[in-house]
Amino acid sequence: QNAVTVYGIADLYLQYGQGSTGSQLSVQTGGVSGSRLGFKGTEDLGNGLSAQFQLEMGINADTGSLGQGGLAWGRQAWVGLNQSGLGSLNLGRQNIPQYVVLDTFDPYGTGAGSAASSGIVSTTSRANNSIVLKSASFGGFTVQAMTALGETGTSNTASNVYGLGAQYNAGAFAAGLALSQFKAADATKVDANYALLTGSYDFGAFKVTGGVQRVNNLGGVATVDRTEALAGVLVPVSANGTFSAGVGTGTTEDLAGSRASQYTLGYTHALSKRTRLYAIGTVIQNGSGTQYTAGAASGAGPTTANGKDVSALQVGIRHAF
Amino acid sequence: QNAVTVYGIADLYLQYGQGSTGSQLSVQTGGVSGSRLGFKGTEDLGNGLSAQFQLEMGINADTGSLGQGGLAWGRQAWVGLNQSGLGSLNLGRQNIPQYVVLDTFDPYGTGAGSAASSGIVSTTSRANNSIVLKSASFGGFTVQAMTALGETGTSNTASNVYGLGAQYNAGAFAAGLALSQFKAADATKVDANYALLTGSYDFGAFKVTGGVQRVNNLGGVATVDRTEALAGVLVPVSANGTFSAGVGTGTTEDLAGSRASQYTLGYTHALSKRTRLYAIGTVIQNGSGTQYTAGAASGAGPTTANGKDVSALQVGIRHAF
Amino acid sequence: QNAVTVYGIADLYLQYGQGSTGSQLSVQTGGVSGSRLGFKGTEDLGNGLSAQFQLEMGINADTGSLGQGGLAWGRQAWVGLNQSGLGSLNLGRQNIPQYVVLDTFDPYGTGAGSAASSGIVSTTSRANNSIVLKSASFGGFTVQAMTALGETGTSNTASNVYGLGAQYNAGAFAAGLALSQFKAADATKVDANYALLTGSYDFGAFKVTGGVQRVNNLGGVATVDRTEALAGVLVPVSANGTFSAGVGTGTTEDLAGSRASQYTLGYTHALSKRTRLYAIGTVIQNGSGTQYTAGAASGAGPTTANGKDVSALQVGIRHAF
Repeated sequence: QNAVTVYGIADLYLQYGQGSTGSQLSVQTGGVSGSRLGFKGTEDLGNGLSAQFQLEMGINADTGSLGQGGLAWGRQAWVGLNQSGLGSLNLGRQNIPQYVVLDTFDPYGTGAGSAASSGIVSTTSRANNSIVLKSASFGGFTVQAMTALGETGTSNTASNVYGLGAQYNAGAFAAGLALSQFKAADATKVDANYALLTGSYDFGAFKVTGGVQRVNNLGGVATVDRTEALAGVLVPVSANGTFSAGVGTGTTEDLAGSRASQYTLGYTHALSKRTRLYAIGTVIQNGSGTQYTAGAASGAGPTTANGKDVSALQVGIRHAF
Repeated sequence: QNAVTVYGIADLYLQYGQGSTGSQLSVQTGGVSGSRLGFKGTEDLGNGLSAQFQLEMGINADTGSLGQGGLAWGRQAWVGLNQSGLGSLNLGRQNIPQYVVLDTFDPYGTGAGSAASSGIVSTTSRANNSIVLKSASFGGFTVQAMTALGETGTSNTASNVYGLGAQYNAGAFAAGLALSQFKAADATKVDANYALLTGSYDFGAFKVTGGVQRVNNLGGVATVDRTEALAGVLVPVSANGTFSAGVGTGTTEDLAGSRASQYTLGYTHALSKRTRLYAIGTVIQNGSGTQYTAGAASGAGPTTANGKDVSALQVGIRHAF
Repeated sequence: QNAVTVYGIADLYLQYGQGSTGSQLSVQTGGVSGSRLGFKGTEDLGNGLSAQFQLEMGINADTGSLGQGGLAWGRQAWVGLNQSGLGSLNLGRQNIPQYVVLDTFDPYGTGAGSAASSGIVSTTSRANNSIVLKSASFGGFTVQAMTALGETGTSNTASNVYGLGAQYNAGAFAAGLALSQFKAADATKVDANYALLTGSYDFGAFKVTGGVQRVNNLGGVATVDRTEALAGVLVPVSANGTFSAGVGTGTTEDLAGSRASQYTLGYTHALSKRTRLYAIGTVIQNGSGTQYTAGAASGAGPTTANGKDVSALQVGIRHAF
C-alpha cells in the first residue's frame, strides 16, 4: 500500500476590478480555494491507533511563486497520533480553531466574495509550533484546542496563541463557537482576544449560514475593539448549479469612518465532484478610514485607498486533484 | 485511479570550459533539459471535455536550489479545460508560443550546444498571468495564442505579452511560425517584437532543422534590432546513437562587433527511452562587443568577456522519470 | 510501473530546555531525523546496469519553512548509474563520506542527543557539485569516494571537497574509516583535514558503538586542531523498546576552556516499523570558551553562552512515509 497521498487544488481566475485607480484586468490565483500541493498519509498502528501527517504547500499559480509570503509548507506541516473514537494530538504548523470554524460557516468559505478574505471579518489562518488536540465526534459535538508557542526571546508566553473551537452538527442545523487569544509579543502590545459564534440551517431549497465576532485589541493594540459579522444564503438551482448571496460588515468601536461592508452575488457550476467553474461579483463599501479590497482565498483584490469603494468580478475554475 | 502523475527529469553534466579566465571544470545542472519535478493530471468530464493542470518546478540539481531565479514553480503552473478535437484554454504561468516553436525546431532543443541557450538567438521561455488558447491538430496544423497580463501599476497593457505560434506537420516535413510582442513596461521603453520562421525535413538517414528570427527593439530598446538564425543536422548512427552538428548566429543592426556565432558537435547515446548519455562540444566566436557563453538548458557556461571566444565540452546524463 | 517513489519523514518534538537564559519550552522539527520529503527512483537498463536519481527536501515542520537554510532540495539532489556487483557513479548534491560513516556509528545517528548534532564532534553533511563513486559490498567491505568542485572564481581547486569513506561489516562487528579534505576558499585560509575511525559490536543484549576523530585546521583556520570522540550503548529492553546512553567530547589543542562534553540518556518506543516515539535527556558541559547547545537532527537547542551548561528533554514522534 502507498503510504503517501499526493493531492492538491489548482484554482485560477480572471478578475475585472474597479478600485481606487480605475479598472484593472488580472489573472489571479486562489479564488474559491488557495491553490496548493499536498502530501498526507495515515498508518494503522492497531487497536484504533494511527499515525498521521500532512504537508501542504500554498502556490500562487498565476506566477509560480510560493504562497503564505514565500513559505514552502505554509498551509500545513504536522505529524501526530489519532485514537479512533477519541481524538488526535498533532504537532507542527496547523490551522487555528477560530479559522476552522469561520471557514466552515462563511457562505464563501474564506474565498472569493468573503468578508473574511477582504479582512472586514478578522482571522488568522495558522500558527507555528502548535500543539492541537481534536476530539472525535461525540453525538455531533467536536472540539479542538490549540496551544502554539511563540518561542520569542526568553519568554515562554510572548506571542503564544491559544485557541478553542467547538462545532455541533445535528442534521440540518449546525453551530460553532471559537475563542482565540494572541499573547502580546512584547510590552508595547496587549493580548488580542477573539470570540466567534456561528450557525447554519439547511432548509433544503436553500441554506443560510453566518456568524458574529467580537475582537478585542486587534493586532495587540488596546484601542482597537471590533464587532464583525458575515452571513449568506446558498441556493441550489440545478443538479450542478448553486447561486449564492452574502454580506459582511465590521466596525471598530469609537472610531469614525471605520465601518465597511461587503455585498456578494455568486454562481458556481460543478463540472464534476473535483472541478467547478465560478463567477463572483462583489462590492465593498469602505468607510472614510478603511481600505479593504476584494481579495479571494489567496488572490489579490483591486488597488484600494481610504474611503474608496471597490468592486470585482471574478470568473474562474477550481480543480481538485 | 490516481488523479496526479508525478514526473520529472534529472539532468547533470560535467563541463570542461575555456572562457575569458582560463579553463574551468564544473558540475552543472540541466544540459539537454532543465532538471525538474512536476505534477500533472487530467480529469474526464464527459462529452470530450476534460480538466487539466500542471505544476512544474525547475531544480538546480548540482546545488539543490530552485531554478528560474528561485521561483518554486518556475517552469509551469496552470489549470484549464480541454475539448477533444477542438482545443484547450489554460490560465497561469505558461510557455510563450515563440519559445515552443523555437524549442521544437532548434537542433539542440534550447539545451546544451544551442544558440538559444547561449542567447545568440533570443527567446523568453514563459510568462506569468497568461491565458493560452491551443487548438487541436487540424490536418497537421496546430495554433496557439497567448495573452499574458503585465499587471503593472494602473495600466492594463504595460508589460503585457502577446504571442502566436503555428506549426504544420506533414510526415517528413514540418514548419513553424511564431510572433511575439512584449509591451513596454513604461514610457522609457518601446514594444519589442519577434518574428520566427522555422522548418525541418527528415531524409531518413539524417534530419535537417532550423529557423530564422527577426527581433525589433530587443529588451524594449528602440535601437536594438537583430537578425538571428540557427540550424543543424541530426544523424542516427546506430540503434541508440545520434550524431549532431549545429550552427547559430546573430547580429545587431548597425552595431559594430555585434556578430556572434556558435558551432556545435554532439553525440547522444540512449540507454533506454528514459535515460541517455550525451557529449556536446561547442565553440562561440564572440564579436568585439558580445560576451555570449555556452550555457545549456539551465547550466551556466564558462566565464566570458567582450570579444573573448568561449568553448565547452559537456558530458552528462539525462534521466526522465 | 511507477518511475517515482514519494517518501519522507515527519519528526517533531516538544523540548524543555535549560540554557543560558532560563528554561524554555518549544516545539521543534527533526529530533531523531530531519523532517523531509523525497522523490527517488531506479530504472533497470539491462545487464545489471540501472539509472538512479534522488531529490530530497529538508523541511522545518514546526514552521513550514525549508531546511538547510532555505535550500529547496538541500538534503539530496543527484542522478547517476549503478552497475550491480560493482558500484555506482552519481553527480549532484550528495552526502560527504565522513558524514555517512559518522552517522552510521554515532549511537544517536546525528540526531537528538548526539555530540555531532551539538557540534562537539565536527561534521559537514553534504557538498554541492559533487561526483561520488560508491562500491558495491565486497565481502562486507564498501568504499565511497567524493570529489566536490568548489567552482570558486577562476580556481579549479579552491573550496573543493575530497572525501573517502570505508566501512566493513562482519556480523556483529562493524568498523569504519573516513578522511575528508576541505580545500581553502582563498589565501586567508588553509586546507582543513578530518580523520575519523569508528567501530561497533553487537553483543545481543546490547550494542556498543562509537568513534574518534582528529580535525586539523577546522574551518580553514590553521590554529584550530581538535580531538573529538563519541560513544554509546543501545539496549533492547522489550520487543519495541530500546534504551540508550551516550557520551561525546571534544577539545581544541592548546586552547584553554575548549573542552566540552555531552551526556545523553534515551528511550525509543517503536509503534511500528515506520513510527516511533522517543524521549531524550541530554546535558552539555561547556568549557569556559565553548557554547555548544543541544541541537537535534535539525531542531534548535536552548540558547547558550560561553561556559554555560545546557540541558534538554526532548520528547517526540518520528513517522516515516
